[in-house]
Amino acid sequence: MDSRDIASVVSKVVASLSSKMTLDIAKALSLCVEKKAQEMGVNAVICVADSGARPILVHSMDNAYIASFDIAVKKAYTVVSLKMPTSKLKTLAAPGGSLYGIQFTNDGQIVIFGGGDPLIINGEIIGGIGVSGGTEEQDTALSLYGASVLEEIIKRI
Amino acid sequence: MDSRDIASVVSKVVASLSSKMTLDIAKALSLCVEKKAQEMGVNAVICVADSGARPILVHSMDNAYIASFDIAVKKAYTVVSLKMPTSKLKTLAAPGGSLYGIQFTNDGQIVIFGGGDPLIINGEIIGGIGVSGGTEEQDTALSLYGASVLEEIIKRI
Amino acid sequence: MDSRDIASVVSKVVASLSSKMTLDIAKALSLCVEKKAQEMGVNAVICVADSGARPILVHSMDNAYIASFDIAVKKAYTVVSLKMPTSKLKTLAAPGGSLYGIQFTNDGQIVIFGGGDPLIINGEIIGGIGVSGGTEEQDTALSLYGASVLEEIIKRI
Amino acid sequence: MDSRDIASVVSKVVASLSSKMTLDIAKALSLCVEKKAQEMGVNAVICVADSGARPILVHSMDNAYIASFDIAVKKAYTVVSLKMPTSKLKTLAAPGGSLYGIQFTNDGQIVIFGGGDPLIINGEIIGGIGVSGGTEEQDTALSLYGASVLEEIIKRI
Repeated sequence: MDSRDIASVVSKVVASLSSKMTLDIAKALSLCVEKKAQEMGVNAVICVADSGARPILVHSMDNAYIASFDIAVKKAYTVVSLKMPTSKLKTLAAPGGSLYGIQFTNDGQIVIFGGGDPLIINGEIIGGIGVSGGTEEQDTALSLYGASVLEEIIKRI
Repeated sequence: MDSRDIASVVSKVVASLSSKMTLDIAKALSLCVEKKAQEMGVNAVICVADSGARPILVHSMDNAYIASFDIAVKKAYTVVSLKMPTSKLKTLAAPGGSLYGIQFTNDGQIVIFGGGDPLIINGEIIGGIGVSGGTEEQDTALSLYGASVLEEIIKRI
Repeated sequence: MDSRDIASVVSKVVASLSSKMTLDIAKALSLCVEKKAQEMGVNAVICVADSGARPILVHSMDNAYIASFDIAVKKAYTVVSLKMPTSKLKTLAAPGGSLYGIQFTNDGQIVIFGGGDPLIINGEIIGGIGVSGGTEEQDTALSLYGASVLEEIIKRI
Repeated sequence: MDSRDIASVVSKVVASLSSKMTLDIAKALSLCVEKKAQEMGVNAVICVADSGARPILVHSMDNAYIASFDIAVKKAYTVVSLKMPTSKLKTLAAPGGSLYGIQFTNDGQIVIFGGGDPLIINGEIIGGIGVSGGTEEQDTALSLYGASVLEEIIKRI
């Protein structure tokens, strides 16, 4: 085993260690999404959950909908607990869909419209993001944006 | 700056202060809606909420449906917490609509049929009204009526 | 059957008819309690329920506690559903009391401290009043006051 | 009335306007509490609510108790909805206390042990802070600390 092999192993270990959701990551991630939401003119609530589907951070932007707090938290729960975006679940849970009715399980914590995305590092779900406050298209754009900047944020921290 | 200028400033400040929901406003508003409901032959429950989506007044007219109490309170919650009439949410939350499933969030407090309208003064939502007891058309007519007379009521008080 | 008998029957029927909780009675009753609360410097929430323990009226005075809405409604439920003042239930439901544990039944609708009183006409419970917003002593004084003025209010209407 | 008088009035109006909870204030406040918690060796969950008792921010520090999320959010609700610290409610809601039983109202949202304090500016409650994660003494120290730094934080922003 030469120094390059060791470097590679160390690198992977460090990467896997860093791929745990932390409050620092959640803050940096939410800040990015808040800035994007502001550009789009959306007053959003953003929730970041960890790999146990537990909320780590919730931010309600000024003048966000009161109802959005609950929706953002539950979108974050949904994407981690079912390992898929809420926009994908939307189709499956629609009347006639194969999972129609799943929205009535889990004590009402399943959200079936866009705005929730898993947070993935190296193919592993380390948490989820839920966004609520705009139209479904806006919420979906924002949660996807959050998921897309995650890797860069982790590198930066 | 003469006394008229100061009077104008004070007047505006008072006006902005007065655009807060109070029990007196809620009583006068509900009374108008009750009279209109009586004319229409509807035994309604009327709820007025403040800008925090908290109920300030609920009146159940004689012989109103028992189930209408809960519905009126939740309509008032819905319109403030989502800043839209329940009649608009109806379309968005229908199967196939972009927000289908929102009715399963917020612990069952979201109502997705007509009879709830935001109460708006100078473009600002100061509360909401929820009416239940007639057909959807009647409830919608009554909550819209309530929203339409708000400004006049505030001036009169 | 002479005219005096008929008068007596009519009188009883009218009395029994008038001893039904109505929105008009509830409004007049709440107004009395609101005035008394204002004198005492209490921002109260007042709920009047009918003989079915269903809320007919809820008024939240300006600057009342947000938590008081729920408490007032449940005090009114408690006194009609158990046919006793909440101040009496307080003793029975205390640790060591004969009904300790009753507060965990009825889906959390049982309140076990003062501020709720049955509304009684001719020995018959026609509804209940629940008051929340001051100290327990103040709430109890207000609900008792409400119960004490009921008969006069009904005569006046 | 000269320009200084007018300046004074305007200043007061602006001050009263600025005494509204915002996400920026909540972030700065939570950061202070997080730093203090770190010094004390506590992994806390911090919640900041607005004057309507609605949560604006929740932060779960790394390795915080999963159960603390719910407790922090409900402490923030409790202090705004009842306008008192949870440490004060503790005495009132204990067996034998005047409000024993209040913990069973408000759908389980009332917390009756230390770690929640109202956030007050110029004698007005603009929100509340709830902290959970340490011993009751630690949580209380942290929420009190948060309440004590609020005014300075608002000036700085």
